[in-house]
Amino acid sequence: MRKIEHLGIAVSDLEASNNLFEKLLGKAHYKEETVEGEGVSTSFFMIGETKIELLEATRDTSAIAKFIGKKGEGIHHIAFDVEDIEAEVARLKGEGFEILNETPKEGADNKLVVFLHPKSTNGVLVELCQEKKA
Amino acid sequence: MRKIEHLGIAVSDLEASNNLFEKLLGKAHYKEETVEGEGVSTSFFMIGETKIELLEATRDTSAIAKFIGKKGEGIHHIAFDVEDIEAEVARLKGEGFEILNETPKEGADNKLVVFLHPKSTNGVLVELCQEKKA
Repeated sequence: MRKIEHLGIAVSDLEASNNLFEKLLGKAHYKEETVEGEGVSTSFFMIGETKIELLEATRDTSAIAKFIGKKGEGIHHIAFDVEDIEAEVARLKGEGFEILNETPKEGADNKLVVFLHPKSTNGVLVELCQEKKA
Repeated sequence: MRKIEHLGIAVSDLEASNNLFEKLLGKAHYKEETVEGEGVSTSFFMIGETKIELLEATRDTSAIAKFIGKKGEGIHHIAFDVEDIEAEVARLKGEGFEILNETPKEGADNKLVVFLHPKSTNGVLVELCQEKKA
């Protein structure tokens, strides 16, 4: 775990939230990206060494749509930057954390990602993410 | 807004969560501190340039006790590091954000803090924090 790579925030209207976070942070987002596999459109802001990722659902079955249906808009997950995602998954499994997908999957922003179950992490949905190697 | 200064996570049992985050992050917390004014005991971990602040309520009337009663344990707020908290409050008010306390109050870790209402920030409780000057 080297740093907080990004914070994921679930939003209902990506365009409205882009405007809102641009005013809040005093700077514009630097990219948008759709991740079909996850059913989300995303928008990224940089703040220090960490990104803020706004997430809007592109379909009703997306995890983000379900989250907003249950809890409303708000912070959805914390993602930690890791150097070797498989080694980190093995370490965390050994420590008793519940891994949601043991095989890393494609995330936004050229990343491989694994999620831990919030039951095992104080209600916090934790993502591990590793830059994909060329 | 220079960086994410810390992420606040509401927990029911600070000692248990200290152990959990030590395992998750692979490092121990570096301090504990009680903030009487807020009715919280806190524990801090460093990860990159950002802190993770675990918050346990010390009384039932604490905002953390109310949060856990309503939503359960989980991410409570994002705090941004600002250079001049009064200038930042004025800027954000001008942008239409709702300020919860216009006069900065004492936070943990030698900080002056102001909160924005989550209604005006996509359901995210935002804290501004400035290092207290000597």
